[in-house]
Amino acid sequence: MKLLEDGSYLIDAARLEALVQAMLEKVDVPTPDAKLVADALVSADARGMNSHGVMRLPIYIRRLQQGGFKPTSRGTVIKETAATILIDGGDGLGAVLTARAMDAAIEKARQTGVAAVGIRNSNHNGENAYYVQRAIAQDMIGIATTNGSPIMPVWGGKTPLTGPLPIAIGVPTGKAPPIVFDAALGMSSRGKILYYAEKGMQLPDGWLVDADGRPTNDPSWIKRGGWILPIGGYKGWGLILACEILSGLLTGGAFGQELCELYNNLDRPQRNGHFVIAINIAAFTDVDAFKNRMDAYIDIMKASERVPGVDEILMPGELEFRREKKQRAEGLILSRSVIDEVIAVARDLGIDATAAI
Amino acid sequence: MKLLEDGSYLIDAARLEALVQAMLEKVDVPTPDAKLVADALVSADARGMNSHGVMRLPIYIRRLQQGGFKPTSRGTVIKETAATILIDGGDGLGAVLTARAMDAAIEKARQTGVAAVGIRNSNHNGENAYYVQRAIAQDMIGIATTNGSPIMPVWGGKTPLTGPLPIAIGVPTGKAPPIVFDAALGMSSRGKILYYAEKGMQLPDGWLVDADGRPTNDPSWIKRGGWILPIGGYKGWGLILACEILSGLLTGGAFGQELCELYNNLDRPQRNGHFVIAINIAAFTDVDAFKNRMDAYIDIMKASERVPGVDEILMPGELEFRREKKQRAEGLILSRSVIDEVIAVARDLGIDATAAI
Repeated sequence: MKLLEDGSYLIDAARLEALVQAMLEKVDVPTPDAKLVADALVSADARGMNSHGVMRLPIYIRRLQQGGFKPTSRGTVIKETAATILIDGGDGLGAVLTARAMDAAIEKARQTGVAAVGIRNSNHNGENAYYVQRAIAQDMIGIATTNGSPIMPVWGGKTPLTGPLPIAIGVPTGKAPPIVFDAALGMSSRGKILYYAEKGMQLPDGWLVDADGRPTNDPSWIKRGGWILPIGGYKGWGLILACEILSGLLTGGAFGQELCELYNNLDRPQRNGHFVIAINIAAFTDVDAFKNRMDAYIDIMKASERVPGVDEILMPGELEFRREKKQRAEGLILSRSVIDEVIAVARDLGIDATAAI
Repeated sequence: MKLLEDGSYLIDAARLEALVQAMLEKVDVPTPDAKLVADALVSADARGMNSHGVMRLPIYIRRLQQGGFKPTSRGTVIKETAATILIDGGDGLGAVLTARAMDAAIEKARQTGVAAVGIRNSNHNGENAYYVQRAIAQDMIGIATTNGSPIMPVWGGKTPLTGPLPIAIGVPTGKAPPIVFDAALGMSSRGKILYYAEKGMQLPDGWLVDADGRPTNDPSWIKRGGWILPIGGYKGWGLILACEILSGLLTGGAFGQELCELYNNLDRPQRNGHFVIAINIAAFTDVDAFKNRMDAYIDIMKASERVPGVDEILMPGELEFRREKKQRAEGLILSRSVIDEVIAVARDLGIDATAAI
């Protein structure tokens, strides 16, 4: 661990992962599961998606201690067909449940060409990109979505009933970095809108509404009961509804206000639902031929004439791929407040984190 | 057929459907396929989605006459697994191929729980809502997408390589109208932007760029080489890319500039690809329980406090559902120019359309 000039830390990824694993083991998470969650969190940080990274570890630990997350739950199969499984997560760790679900979908899709797994009674599962990358590694297209605690009304409404839910889609390639699309279906993030507020800038049209749902360009409404609009207005809302239906309704799980927020009521399960699909490329076409076609298509896209100010055409996930490569080699750059909190939580668990990382 | 005061026609849906079928039969489309295409086009009109309705019939007929559409191609199975099929459409009618593909996915999903079918070498297939409604009718969730001739660059580019591709998702309900989401992944439609131009209005931010890809609020750029932005910028583009990959790349079909535009080169196949998924609700949960949960969720959403100016919370597809019910009972309202063109094409085929409708 090295303190950088700008106040952030430079930390070796493998050492951080070992620390996260050890901390999770201290609160009764079985070793393979602790390893998996550590990998998921550190991968998100390595990809620069810090909002899904180790900043979530302290709340995971507290929820594991207080009962909202059950450390040893690995999910129970409720229903199974040739190409589908429904899993009750038993309030386990979201990353463990979703990774196991995607792995099960991949195994089934080897035989059936496509497979889908739904999970209910899970919890926060971090970055959906993590799960679709497991499909990519097995020459499959992966799709993953989840529901979440309500912070956004339905289209036309004011009552919080859903969120800017994420959807991730991963596609294998040949020489090019894999396509890893992962986005919340909102026009912007809370963080970006707070940045506009801090700088005293007006928002573009269509990002935010005030507490009455009226369009606003004033970013301060994010702190005063306003909410972020879905991408494309009612179009994005329709996609969000589909994510909610697959994750929460089809699984027989919780939806809307039945879900519990990550940082409140730590003894209560969050009850998130997730839904993953694996599509076996070999069921449709020769895998190498597909990868060559993907590379050729990416070459064509990258050779596009560009709009002014754009230096390079980037594919979904390409920046994150480069960041991960760099940060795994040179160390992760992490915010001091996040790491200081991890160190404090480790100390409470009897682990000297400063020595470990 | 009745001429209304505003200059549009009121036409009985069943009579129009019979006319469309007869016209397609005249250009060698087999009766069941002619019936299916007629149903697809008239259903779109009944739902108020006239851009996917009988206004497309004249170009279909011309393409069938000139060789771009092959009237008797019903698709050949290239590859099949337990839950997937890859179909070569042989340049057949898009609606025939996609409906058969969804029906095949539904049949497989009865056994396997989920199934996916890809189609290559197809043509324009109209409204994707039509296909997901076939899944709904069999108590399944249906998903359908397609690629299309390039009218939109990739994110950051200026070279047209894709389009604001559509995705449709259909979900069965109990007493509530089914959820039928079907949207092109662009911030607006060409028609709506032309309306702003006609009225001399400025566009909201984020809808359109000029011919150099610079953001503009001037709607006239739609006619001068500008293009409609994807929903949520790079987020919508990522979703569009996923639709293109499933429809064009995974199927081994055409992509990007290999596709032919509907109204040009009528003797050349368009080479569209499509991709459909059927998810059998019974594989996850009791169908009636699911439908009751959907109704309960819809009730909760509809009971939301509403933003000012919103009289009612509407679910995706609900307006179209009401329109279809009304127009099937009272007649379709169709534009005079569209029907006059249909009548002229019918006359060339030796059919007296004015007597028929």
